Amino acid sequence: MKEDFLRHDARDEKAIDQRILEIVRATPGGIVSGEELSSRLKVSRTAVWKHIKSLKDLGYRIEAVPSVGYRLVAVPDLLLPAEIAVGLMTERIGRQIISFRETDSTNETAFKLAEEGAPEGTVVLAESQRRGKGRMGRRWESPPGMNLYCSIILRPAILPLQAVQMTFLSAVAVARAVEETTRLVPTIKWPNDVLLSGRKVAGLLNEMGAETEKVNFIILGIGVNINMDAGQFPADLRSPATSLRMETGGAVDRKEFTRALIRALDSLYAAFLVGDYGVVRDEWLARCGMIGRRVHVSYRDSVVAGVATGIDDYGALLLTLDDGCVERVLAGDVTLV
Amino acid sequence: MKEDFLRHDARDEKAIDQRILEIVRATPGGIVSGEELSSRLKVSRTAVWKHIKSLKDLGYRIEAVPSVGYRLVAVPDLLLPAEIAVGLMTERIGRQIISFRETDSTNETAFKLAEEGAPEGTVVLAESQRRGKGRMGRRWESPPGMNLYCSIILRPAILPLQAVQMTFLSAVAVARAVEETTRLVPTIKWPNDVLLSGRKVAGLLNEMGAETEKVNFIILGIGVNINMDAGQFPADLRSPATSLRMETGGAVDRKEFTRALIRALDSLYAAFLVGDYGVVRDEWLARCGMIGRRVHVSYRDSVVAGVATGIDDYGALLLTLDDGCVERVLAGDVTLV
Repeated sequence: MKEDFLRHDARDEKAIDQRILEIVRATPGGIVSGEELSSRLKVSRTAVWKHIKSLKDLGYRIEAVPSVGYRLVAVPDLLLPAEIAVGLMTERIGRQIISFRETDSTNETAFKLAEEGAPEGTVVLAESQRRGKGRMGRRWESPPGMNLYCSIILRPAILPLQAVQMTFLSAVAVARAVEETTRLVPTIKWPNDVLLSGRKVAGLLNEMGAETEKVNFIILGIGVNINMDAGQFPADLRSPATSLRMETGGAVDRKEFTRALIRALDSLYAAFLVGDYGVVRDEWLARCGMIGRRVHVSYRDSVVAGVATGIDDYGALLLTLDDGCVERVLAGDVTLV
Repeated sequence: MKEDFLRHDARDEKAIDQRILEIVRATPGGIVSGEELSSRLKVSRTAVWKHIKSLKDLGYRIEAVPSVGYRLVAVPDLLLPAEIAVGLMTERIGRQIISFRETDSTNETAFKLAEEGAPEGTVVLAESQRRGKGRMGRRWESPPGMNLYCSIILRPAILPLQAVQMTFLSAVAVARAVEETTRLVPTIKWPNDVLLSGRKVAGLLNEMGAETEKVNFIILGIGVNINMDAGQFPADLRSPATSLRMETGGAVDRKEFTRALIRALDSLYAAFLVGDYGVVRDEWLARCGMIGRRVHVSYRDSVVAGVATGIDDYGALLLTLDDGCVERVLAGDVTLV
């Protein structure tokens, strides 16, 4: 992969940097000698020094206290596995976290990793995306350092036509994370946007690899505008967008948001796996801003108008038309009338 | 890719071998001088000689007629693009053909190629598969040189839940090719087997890469037992199997069969694309051996019994149960009672 790789959380040798951080954080007083690091990690003093240097290059501020040891003074504002994993305590999601400084698209990277056998719960993060993807081939703005671009690999034993249930699940998880982090109450827009004050703050692009009767893997692609300013959105956006910062008036901690999202996904997915899809659907409906309201749905050249009354288990939006018939809408862009 | 690559049909420089075959075949008398090949292909005489040698290594018998030129005497029994493409004249399927001597699985190879952007209609062939895949994670026996292992990349603009229609399409195409090549009349078994005398002669394993609202690509995986003998099947097969040779009593030309299959797929897919899925469904139903008959369907730990009455557009088998209810069965193994 030609990605600009940031850091891996896997149990491989690259994780020595992360183990240094763990040891320093777990030591009362926060100072650990090079000798102790060397003996606990079973690497030379020179190797310890090299890893400390590479952490500094990433933006960690690590002080060498003469004849005592190393102290962690500050951590960079990057979505590094070592930062996200701190105290995460989830059952499935985030057991492996992989971060990139830049990638074409986290969904593409995750799709390839899934094909190569990456385990369920793997989280792929990137500081920026060269070709961030929105739904239906559209572009997703992905400037560095201020938002969340994240893709999660799941391997539920479901049929392809149930895969859309995972889109609803990720929408509910994003809504929960927004609410927990900002105290603002977002609404969900069918099929896969999350809104604040009627403007898009997050988008979902789920993809899957599947056989006719079996999903091999699902990629939950989640983009959240966290600290973008109004001036940073392109002028030609199809629908109005916002960010958590624009709505709250202050910077939002990206790491905290990411952890909240991973925890929400983990908990909803656990419920889903024991057959509790109803929990997901009910919360989705409760958070959906358009149920009971009159909408237009456009798809390619056609437009359908009606009152949105619900969703079915295959992801269709149920519209009651003027003549009283119920139409199942499978894809399209919805506008409130 | 760590595949053992046989030959590429793309318009790249590797295709010089194939252009040599084309020129020789198109020349009245069938003898072409090295000088003419050199000037028409714009490569040196030495390069021509090297390509002739590499064709001989593949099994082509090419005679050098002194002071006249080269003559093609015999072609190898390999599913090479240059052989399959002769007179194919299809609109979409087979515009690019890629052959391997051996591959892990043609579906895996095609899946990767599709992800990397291979065009619709690309056909992947292999003489043998190291880990041929059947449905639901099962193994597909793939000894070299006698059968067809083939995967085709399609990019129809459909929703994921319509993907199963492509499984029906490939079943009908296989049935047509069997009938055309052997004059035997196969039956189709839901969801994706083709039978002769009640025994499996072909299996289908379709896979897809998809977004929630859009299929990115579908891989039609098709395995056909062509010239296998009874003794070549493993003893522990789940269901009885047969081959075209066992049913007809004589060897079947693999290239002719492959061409017949590609043509049938091309013609059915053209109909599908103009909205004629009904044609596919009706032929599928007419060829299905179980409609109107009593069957058991087992899936994981459950068994459903009823009379098979049809299929719906999402691939479900419609079963009329004893109490008169109709059940939609989405996955499983069917046995005629």
